[in-house]
Amino acid sequence: MLFGKACRFGGRVRFCVVKPLACLFSSSSNMAKSKFEYVRNFETDDTCLRNCYIVVRLDGRNFHKFTEQHKFSKPNDNRALGLMTRSAHSVMEELEDIVIAYGQSDEFSFVFKRTSNWFKRRASKLMTHVASQFSSSYVFYWKEFFGEQQPLLYPPSFDGRVVLYPSNRNLRDYLSWRQADCHINNLYNTVFWTLVQKGGLTTAQAEDRLKGTLASDKNEILFSEFDINYNTESALHRKGTTLIWEKRDETVTKRMKRPNEEEKDVAVTRSRRRVQAKHCDIIGEPFWEEHPDILEDDNC
Amino acid sequence: MLFGKACRFGGRVRFCVVKPLACLFSSSSNMAKSKFEYVRNFETDDTCLRNCYIVVRLDGRNFHKFTEQHKFSKPNDNRALGLMTRSAHSVMEELEDIVIAYGQSDEFSFVFKRTSNWFKRRASKLMTHVASQFSSSYVFYWKEFFGEQQPLLYPPSFDGRVVLYPSNRNLRDYLSWRQADCHINNLYNTVFWTLVQKGGLTTAQAEDRLKGTLASDKNEILFSEFDINYNTESALHRKGTTLIWEKRDETVTKRMKRPNEEEKDVAVTRSRRRVQAKHCDIIGEPFWEEHPDILEDDNC
Amino acid sequence: MLFGKACRFGGRVRFCVVKPLACLFSSSSNMAKSKFEYVRNFETDDTCLRNCYIVVRLDGRNFHKFTEQHKFSKPNDNRALGLMTRSAHSVMEELEDIVIAYGQSDEFSFVFKRTSNWFKRRASKLMTHVASQFSSSYVFYWKEFFGEQQPLLYPPSFDGRVVLYPSNRNLRDYLSWRQADCHINNLYNTVFWTLVQKGGLTTAQAEDRLKGTLASDKNEILFSEFDINYNTESALHRKGTTLIWEKRDETVTKRMKRPNEEEKDVAVTRSRRRVQAKHCDIIGEPFWEEHPDILEDDNC
Amino acid sequence: MLFGKACRFGGRVRFCVVKPLACLFSSSSNMAKSKFEYVRNFETDDTCLRNCYIVVRLDGRNFHKFTEQHKFSKPNDNRALGLMTRSAHSVMEELEDIVIAYGQSDEFSFVFKRTSNWFKRRASKLMTHVASQFSSSYVFYWKEFFGEQQPLLYPPSFDGRVVLYPSNRNLRDYLSWRQADCHINNLYNTVFWTLVQKGGLTTAQAEDRLKGTLASDKNEILFSEFDINYNTESALHRKGTTLIWEKRDETVTKRMKRPNEEEKDVAVTRSRRRVQAKHCDIIGEPFWEEHPDILEDDNC
Repeated sequence: MLFGKACRFGGRVRFCVVKPLACLFSSSSNMAKSKFEYVRNFETDDTCLRNCYIVVRLDGRNFHKFTEQHKFSKPNDNRALGLMTRSAHSVMEELEDIVIAYGQSDEFSFVFKRTSNWFKRRASKLMTHVASQFSSSYVFYWKEFFGEQQPLLYPPSFDGRVVLYPSNRNLRDYLSWRQADCHINNLYNTVFWTLVQKGGLTTAQAEDRLKGTLASDKNEILFSEFDINYNTESALHRKGTTLIWEKRDETVTKRMKRPNEEEKDVAVTRSRRRVQAKHCDIIGEPFWEEHPDILEDDNC
Repeated sequence: MLFGKACRFGGRVRFCVVKPLACLFSSSSNMAKSKFEYVRNFETDDTCLRNCYIVVRLDGRNFHKFTEQHKFSKPNDNRALGLMTRSAHSVMEELEDIVIAYGQSDEFSFVFKRTSNWFKRRASKLMTHVASQFSSSYVFYWKEFFGEQQPLLYPPSFDGRVVLYPSNRNLRDYLSWRQADCHINNLYNTVFWTLVQKGGLTTAQAEDRLKGTLASDKNEILFSEFDINYNTESALHRKGTTLIWEKRDETVTKRMKRPNEEEKDVAVTRSRRRVQAKHCDIIGEPFWEEHPDILEDDNC
Repeated sequence: MLFGKACRFGGRVRFCVVKPLACLFSSSSNMAKSKFEYVRNFETDDTCLRNCYIVVRLDGRNFHKFTEQHKFSKPNDNRALGLMTRSAHSVMEELEDIVIAYGQSDEFSFVFKRTSNWFKRRASKLMTHVASQFSSSYVFYWKEFFGEQQPLLYPPSFDGRVVLYPSNRNLRDYLSWRQADCHINNLYNTVFWTLVQKGGLTTAQAEDRLKGTLASDKNEILFSEFDINYNTESALHRKGTTLIWEKRDETVTKRMKRPNEEEKDVAVTRSRRRVQAKHCDIIGEPFWEEHPDILEDDNC
Repeated sequence: MLFGKACRFGGRVRFCVVKPLACLFSSSSNMAKSKFEYVRNFETDDTCLRNCYIVVRLDGRNFHKFTEQHKFSKPNDNRALGLMTRSAHSVMEELEDIVIAYGQSDEFSFVFKRTSNWFKRRASKLMTHVASQFSSSYVFYWKEFFGEQQPLLYPPSFDGRVVLYPSNRNLRDYLSWRQADCHINNLYNTVFWTLVQKGGLTTAQAEDRLKGTLASDKNEILFSEFDINYNTESALHRKGTTLIWEKRDETVTKRMKRPNEEEKDVAVTRSRRRVQAKHCDIIGEPFWEEHPDILEDDNC
């Protein structure tokens, strides 16, 4: 019944009466492919300007609903923050040339070094790869952080963007901007949920109470009404998470045999880069003075 | 010990002697944030040209290694193809305005309608969201397709790109290009693995045997040596997977009560859009004639 | 005194004592050049999306002041309009692939055909070349239009932009937009200057008089107060100037000698493309029906 | 005959029987314009990345032919170089924020300061304005340099491009690249035309003679065969032209009268910025040390 069947390829119809093989348009389908290949010319080049830091920032999509459905604790859920950091860690290990990453709440920023040539600096490749690796890691490691009692109900998503920063000052100001945002939001959320959870206010009342207050007012509320010193609250919550590479010497014992010697145990020390998480201030100078290798010289 | 501690914010150092609250730079940290906010101006606009189809294509990263490590069957693994389709399905349901998607092997293309205003047509948002949703779905649904005997060993990743097509002809040629690619690769892989698995050749021998052969030669090998008619092989493998929206009338029975009537069961019919998978030719006219709603008129 | 002089190249200083030649850093300056050539990689690709019409629009810079200083007549100066058209004509003859141009007031739009590959479709090249050719022509032909009594006081300038249109409908709507703009401005200016020049109003009074009037009101003023029928005013002013290519047969007489014949005069007819100026409606269908070759089929 | 004529606007046809005014579609043409205005959304944003130097480089189009037709002297025509510099001068005075310009042969580069917000940093506006102002100036000032004996035969054109440089080092390397190019070309051209003009070689012979020679060989030819020390040749030709702003105190005498004083002449000194042309090395440090105000600090 195949014999004599009409075959369509490339819009043309031919009748094949002898052998099915003739129907396959072997060469004609190859031709077809080359006929269509002009569509590749519609791709545009999105190479990032050289000698600029490339920042990819991810943000959770509809995470307000997601946190409700997965019963995240308020104002911060350490399991969720741990999972974000674990996923960012996975991104740093999979992609070359990320020199620092900073995360807070449902966002994470990844900074590629200014001289990076990863993916030929193509913006679309860089940001989709980061978004993809982060998202698959988030699902993959979910159970490590949420255990069996809170299953993941559906696959979450993150959107991303690329921003370029030409100077060290600009890059540091970007990171400062994100950490200042973390501070402001966390202070607000801390007071808000304290008023609700310990002060017995409704969320509407707490919102009202905080309308128009300055940071100093918020600190005062915590201190005088709830005996909480915001400064001694968790640094993870106040400062967010900074991931950097640190070199460590690792010593392992290897059994070796050299010529004219007995076989023996030898201690071998290798320097290895590892991702380290910090919860410290990255706005001021000290962090950058302690880690002079993160930034490259502006004058390059 | 907190009292009198030096606090740093924005690079400046102040000494606080009375209350920790003074240390928080409430207002100064707010100022700090606004001081840094200029960095937002470094974001660039990447709005997609209006009235063009927006195609986001994803490709598996290092999937050669991934398929080896997860013991995918050759030349096609139906579990893996099913998982790809399930993930693409999830993307279509989460994102608005995708009118057709086409996948084969470890790639999937998503086509947003030309008049879409989803994410204000911002390329970075569109492609990262697609990449993220697809990747998290891939991990989330893995077990549905691979069961317990083949666990996912690590989080995989996909990279993506955006391409714009101004006319219906260009878009159809793009999809034809991908399906012609599917055909060529699948024919090659089918013969290659038949020579290895049934013909007893090594992979090197099979490669040698196929060097320089035309499609007709490959069909001939299958037909005369292995009694395989390529045309009757699985359409899923030969044609890939096309996802489209189809309207279906769904009838449910509802118990209703109208004024002056007894309560009774009423059949209620609603038209619902559902994603449907097809494994057919999309190069020729028939597919497009049967589905005239996928493409919008060029003259708009 | 050259001998022994310090030469600097590439920032290094060397002392040359024997021959000036050694001073030239022959090879080192070549090296220098190659050392600097990395800066070419900072150029970015700005290729226009394929299969879209490329529109370059120029606008006069500070032309309000320019028209005052060069005593342009109000509301329209035919010398100035003629010079604009002459300059646009020069652009069309110098650049390939412009299929239609439309100008009014101090602006001109040039439309490259959608399949053009001129300058490899690089936006920066296209728009700077148009801006440059137009501007140098404007100065070059000034005297042809303004004669000796109104010399050009200083070199004027025009800025430009590139816009892409994916469909014939979009392109036509772009041109309609510019012609509708011409209509609205010219109607306003015609009434305004009639009120001033014939009605004896000050410019402030004329402005007041026209505040909030509809087009019908403006026509009424012209018709009932000044006996002017706007519709019979100059089409150049009401419709602007459209430049298109028209083929004409040109017959020239050539003296030729064929084998075995006497030398004789032969009429040779060649088809030649020439730029033609039109002052007609380009919003409606008739113009496009009369000139079916301007637009290419959408389905390409 | 106007009465009863069919009027078309926006593709619709209406018949007008009473008054011509009704034909004008006063309000409908306004509507028409708003109907078309959606085409503005096809314009894309091409804002230059902040905190980068913006370089606009112009190059003469078909200047080989242009120099032949206008009988430029070889290897350098001082009239032409003077005209280029005069035109660049005009660009610097008309556009804000150009801190340095460098020209040689038929090209000129203009550098906008990194913090410039001229034209909101829109690349298309910046480059078309530069190209336009330069081109109109070139025609406008032609006679000042070429006098009456060499009239301008047709309007020339220049094309342009925009390149961004994130650091002072990158910008200086860009300028060094152009000056090294000037050096290499001028040395070649000097020897080539000396061989032709003084050595009596044909251009083909001169080309052959120079094939494969190093800079040192070229210097040797000039020195030993023609007694020319390349180093003492015109700096204009060897180094090109650098335009910068220089502040000068200008003292003018004004007749002033102060209260309770006699009217008297007062010397008033004002600091004025003026464009200055230099023909010096800009690759080494000295130039930049003498002009520390040209570049802004990287750390901004």
